[in-house]
Amino acid sequence: MTREQAAARETRADFEALDAADPLAPCRARFALPRGVIYLDGNSLGPLTHAAVDRAQAVVTREWGEGLIRSWNEADWINLPARVAAKVARLIGASADEVTVADSTSINLFKLLAAARGLRPGRHVLLTEAENFPTDVYVAEGLAELLSGSVMLRVVPRAELLHALDEQVALLFLTEVDYKSGARHGVAAMTRRAHEAGALALWDLSHSVGALPIDLRGAGADLAVGCGYKYLNGGPGAPAFLYVAKPWHEAIHPVLSGWMGHARPFDFALGYQPASGIARFQAGTPSVIALSILDSALDEFEGVSLDAVRAKSSALSEAFIRLVESRCAGHGLTLASPRDATQRGSQVSFRHAHGYPIMQALIARGVIGDFRAPDLLRFGFAPLYVRHVDVWDAVAVLEAVLTSGEWRDPRFASVATVT
Amino acid sequence: MTREQAAARETRADFEALDAADPLAPCRARFALPRGVIYLDGNSLGPLTHAAVDRAQAVVTREWGEGLIRSWNEADWINLPARVAAKVARLIGASADEVTVADSTSINLFKLLAAARGLRPGRHVLLTEAENFPTDVYVAEGLAELLSGSVMLRVVPRAELLHALDEQVALLFLTEVDYKSGARHGVAAMTRRAHEAGALALWDLSHSVGALPIDLRGAGADLAVGCGYKYLNGGPGAPAFLYVAKPWHEAIHPVLSGWMGHARPFDFALGYQPASGIARFQAGTPSVIALSILDSALDEFEGVSLDAVRAKSSALSEAFIRLVESRCAGHGLTLASPRDATQRGSQVSFRHAHGYPIMQALIARGVIGDFRAPDLLRFGFAPLYVRHVDVWDAVAVLEAVLTSGEWRDPRFASVATVT
Repeated sequence: MTREQAAARETRADFEALDAADPLAPCRARFALPRGVIYLDGNSLGPLTHAAVDRAQAVVTREWGEGLIRSWNEADWINLPARVAAKVARLIGASADEVTVADSTSINLFKLLAAARGLRPGRHVLLTEAENFPTDVYVAEGLAELLSGSVMLRVVPRAELLHALDEQVALLFLTEVDYKSGARHGVAAMTRRAHEAGALALWDLSHSVGALPIDLRGAGADLAVGCGYKYLNGGPGAPAFLYVAKPWHEAIHPVLSGWMGHARPFDFALGYQPASGIARFQAGTPSVIALSILDSALDEFEGVSLDAVRAKSSALSEAFIRLVESRCAGHGLTLASPRDATQRGSQVSFRHAHGYPIMQALIARGVIGDFRAPDLLRFGFAPLYVRHVDVWDAVAVLEAVLTSGEWRDPRFASVATVT
Repeated sequence: MTREQAAARETRADFEALDAADPLAPCRARFALPRGVIYLDGNSLGPLTHAAVDRAQAVVTREWGEGLIRSWNEADWINLPARVAAKVARLIGASADEVTVADSTSINLFKLLAAARGLRPGRHVLLTEAENFPTDVYVAEGLAELLSGSVMLRVVPRAELLHALDEQVALLFLTEVDYKSGARHGVAAMTRRAHEAGALALWDLSHSVGALPIDLRGAGADLAVGCGYKYLNGGPGAPAFLYVAKPWHEAIHPVLSGWMGHARPFDFALGYQPASGIARFQAGTPSVIALSILDSALDEFEGVSLDAVRAKSSALSEAFIRLVESRCAGHGLTLASPRDATQRGSQVSFRHAHGYPIMQALIARGVIGDFRAPDLLRFGFAPLYVRHVDVWDAVAVLEAVLTSGEWRDPRFASVATVT
């Protein structure tokens, strides 16, 4: 029996049975998902949890409203970044004291790229791939321009990365999971290649953290950053994290040196003295409300096995590909993600010449993925709240949208600001 | 009749009468102040408004929870920073297109100091005063270290500022209102001196915005930054703002070049192209929940005259000084702020050898100011919610604390993390 024949025999009941046996199934009830929606865009913005609603209310009305300035001590706001960092650390194979949570991924990347200069004397090149998330490349561009000459940016296609990893490269920076195709780098293998070439390795975990096991220490990674609002469900524009491996802590000096990274901020001393360890990568006053919501969202990972998350993610995305290729055959969809689940993150992308209106038609029917120009439909499978039946139902809707041709309706043609 | 004799004749009824005649009195009902508290620390963290509670709830449950990723378009999150900026612009004498809201004050200061390099060719010195808020100095230190040699930081006592403003200075950066003493710079006069010396002027408005009229355009200021969580009441760690005067817009190139400052972020193009105008100073994804709360808080300034705010602020602080000096005479308090109200911001500081336990005893009685080492008691007067009777009552409590000696209780001696 071929893969297509097998897919043709599958029924919704098979997917219901998978949900019934799913050890992660109870997690879904923790999320405040709207009715009538199958949410396959957690790779872009994770959904709200019920606990986060309560936490937002508590930090706003009780801690800020009632506690006012006293909450820096009484609600321990001052240690909130470290508490949130400890929860992130568990998800990325780091110690709590190797991680801090602050600012945005872009800002944190700048902090690390700038601070890491000089760690490889005589080497001036920051190497990345053209497939990297654009903001990562822009941030490195900005730094290279600022340091005109003493840091140079080299951007090459993925296929040329290893060739470009020469004796000029001070640091290789990559995103583990490609935001477009979902293709996944081997963090350990690429880190080893960077080290063999005498370079450091920095990983952007934005599209992987919370969706698959990450072992930064095991991989020997030097530096990392990542996003709080995708699979971590920290809310739109949630604070981001950064990681510095312990051995670099004292050698790496912050450039965005703000008072919250000072050894004794409340001395209000004139000269900057970095805090010991990772706390030196704090800059301004932490965004307490946003951090609190992220803190709450991270609790959903408490006691959850990331191996189980990964296994379910693979099963969901495998089923999605199989069903789309069987049920939507002949409608012009082409898989744009690696076919091997071990080579993907937790998202699947298909190309279609009319990807934009097709995605709008799907969204109108409550199946929310997203579109990336020029022709990519992206579908993210976040195992804490996406069910096996959601995959079945999403493909049924996609099939209906394609078969009916309803995506040709002019209302789906207008291009929104953010897609 | 001397000033002291006049103060001795004042009664609480006089202050009630002032409140009855106060055009800003209705504003107070908009704030969710806790019972039993006189809040004189809005210069450090502004209080919650009732509208912000509702807005926080709406952005969390409706926009994020129900709208999910769709809210970037449907709730127009993508233009939220610009909408908030327009409200800030009105408070600082700027056009809406000269201001953006993002990140923290520290990060925004770095953005501007870094981007402004080269605007005064041949000049390499960033000049500030030792009295500036420490994080501002730390940030400039970090930049100078990063650019080893091409930017130098010069920090001098306030009294030597004009002497130090020589032909090497590229940029003078100052905070309008001193966080310790409340002493206020003349923005227009100092900007003129900077320009006469061939330098640019950058103002940190953190301790003034929302408490007094600011006219950046009238002053000819080049650059500015400011805080969202003090007199703007945007919540703990609220996003901060930055201002670039129109004539510099095209000459000034962002260094923290993130995707949200790109001309077309959703093209995901490889090379960074700055957005036209001030939008180029956005970096990462905006902190939507925190921005929404600040947006709501700024509505409290709608229709409010900043001249009326300033007049009330002066009256409150004048009365506070007069009453403290009359009723608490002989208890070791010394005024640490300028005596002339036009030379102060909206806060008053007194020195006392036992300032820390005295402030703790005040807080225990519900009068919330704060303490700055080694000996400063700070009291902020935010005219939107502080009443004239609050001044009367606060001084009565201070008098009771000093007369009773209750501040000597050991429970007030322990030093908290954040003071």
